[in-house]
Amino acid sequence: MEGRNKLTDLQITFLGTGGSIPTANRGLSAVAVRRKNELLLFDCGEGTQRQMIQSRVGFHRKAKVFVTHMHGDHVLGLPGLLQTMSLLGRTNELEIYGPKGIKDFVEAINKTVRFTLTFSLQVFEVDAGLVCDEKEYQVTAVQSGHMDPSLSYALTEKPRPGRFHKEKAKKLRVPEGPLWSKLQSGKAIKLADGTTVEPEMVLGESRHGRKIVYTGDTGPSENLVKLAENADLLIHEATFEDAMKERAIEDGHSTPSIAAQTAKQAAVKKLVLTHISARYNDANLLLQQAKKIFSNTELAEDFMQLELPLSKG
Amino acid sequence: MEGRNKLTDLQITFLGTGGSIPTANRGLSAVAVRRKNELLLFDCGEGTQRQMIQSRVGFHRKAKVFVTHMHGDHVLGLPGLLQTMSLLGRTNELEIYGPKGIKDFVEAINKTVRFTLTFSLQVFEVDAGLVCDEKEYQVTAVQSGHMDPSLSYALTEKPRPGRFHKEKAKKLRVPEGPLWSKLQSGKAIKLADGTTVEPEMVLGESRHGRKIVYTGDTGPSENLVKLAENADLLIHEATFEDAMKERAIEDGHSTPSIAAQTAKQAAVKKLVLTHISARYNDANLLLQQAKKIFSNTELAEDFMQLELPLSKG
Repeated sequence: MEGRNKLTDLQITFLGTGGSIPTANRGLSAVAVRRKNELLLFDCGEGTQRQMIQSRVGFHRKAKVFVTHMHGDHVLGLPGLLQTMSLLGRTNELEIYGPKGIKDFVEAINKTVRFTLTFSLQVFEVDAGLVCDEKEYQVTAVQSGHMDPSLSYALTEKPRPGRFHKEKAKKLRVPEGPLWSKLQSGKAIKLADGTTVEPEMVLGESRHGRKIVYTGDTGPSENLVKLAENADLLIHEATFEDAMKERAIEDGHSTPSIAAQTAKQAAVKKLVLTHISARYNDANLLLQQAKKIFSNTELAEDFMQLELPLSKG
Repeated sequence: MEGRNKLTDLQITFLGTGGSIPTANRGLSAVAVRRKNELLLFDCGEGTQRQMIQSRVGFHRKAKVFVTHMHGDHVLGLPGLLQTMSLLGRTNELEIYGPKGIKDFVEAINKTVRFTLTFSLQVFEVDAGLVCDEKEYQVTAVQSGHMDPSLSYALTEKPRPGRFHKEKAKKLRVPEGPLWSKLQSGKAIKLADGTTVEPEMVLGESRHGRKIVYTGDTGPSENLVKLAENADLLIHEATFEDAMKERAIEDGHSTPSIAAQTAKQAAVKKLVLTHISARYNDANLLLQQAKKIFSNTELAEDFMQLELPLSKG
């Protein structure tokens, strides 16, 4: 079970990978990150709730939504998601984070569309900086290179305790069982003879947590390069092909080369391109353009899933 | 071409046939009626724009939207539809009809979500009675048996001129060509010798137009029976199976038997069941229950299309 969790405790599902206008194959922007038993949803374009149902992502009890900006294709799925969660009898609080304007939007929907929320809804208007600080992870944001305000988000896990060295524990006469677990989780213990064993005495170096960056809409952005530094996964928009660079930048969007350059500069492990314009029936061209600059690139498709296993280090 | 038009000038596409919560196979409420070169959309649940794209219904220049009531699953697709129409550069006016509350909703979206309409939007809050009166058809409404306000709509074509009797025209010495067309369209003509020929002299009895009724959400309703009288097609909600009649009525919804009884009492030609609860993976049970009472019943599926050809009478 432990081994299995290590493979699947962080899973990314691309719910909507289209740009601005949906197509037969690409829904509007949304990425679901399931981390342990919590759902972190990045953007919530129209149709997100249905894509969640189709991909069996599930409406988790613990859930947060992070909206990048107030363009319809990134936010219009929110009211229907709230309604469906209510129809399903949700009682757990839901937290929504987004730029200025998100509160007005949610309030306007609550006033003008008839449905009753069955749960407490917390809407936070946030800015660049620390967005939320949980026990095991943080979400931070920067102003993206799109419109103002528009955020790119990073989910960064806090460092985890290092690898447990059984032989050291045995040498220190720590009996196998609950005391081992306590040490493994980074806490000091006291032996029957009164000796204290500090976790550092049996653990290797603490290990970096994983980092996922989701750009939302953006043109080239220095902020983003910093945010994405050493990320395990950079989910970057690439609305238009390289030949349309001028138009892309004018509209606050990116080409595959812009995305790949950011990935390279930030030294991320993996790049995934999303927010693909409806003009591309086959977006393989975009993938090839990015790969020339950053080889470990994938093209997002609706319902594509990625696992980000814990490093063994 | 004329012959082909007669078969396809009125086409109904079921865009969303699910009830309240979408499923993998059923989107939220929307029915597209294409009549000649005009699109009449009844309800616009979340995801409607994408269903339109997937079914190739098209965003017609001439278009009207009729919203039955302000529950999210019937109206939350509207903002995204307006945005996509704008992104596609629409310039033709769009008319939206709906009950009290629809104006506030559209205004709230315009204020809180960032997009620019490229076309003129007319939003009409309507009541039971005549909703719109066009040259060739009317749309009328009644208060449905759901919540207050909630409308059921009827699209009724105005009578068309009767069949053209060539032999009578020839006998009256009307030369073949433009004068025939004028008479066929119900207008009087003057011959070269000054004789007036009235259309009644060469046309058969005028023929009834077609009639389509869309219930939106409703429980059993006398209003609806009257509205649906002699309709060619009654699109009736059937959220729950017969065994759940009590729950259905309590929530202002229908069972297949309620729908079929309305079809029978109103002497409609054809009944289609829609707004099927997410609890039914296979809704064949619902179809069978309706068929026991009204045999010419079909079960709506997303993307199902029906043609309503002109009668030959």
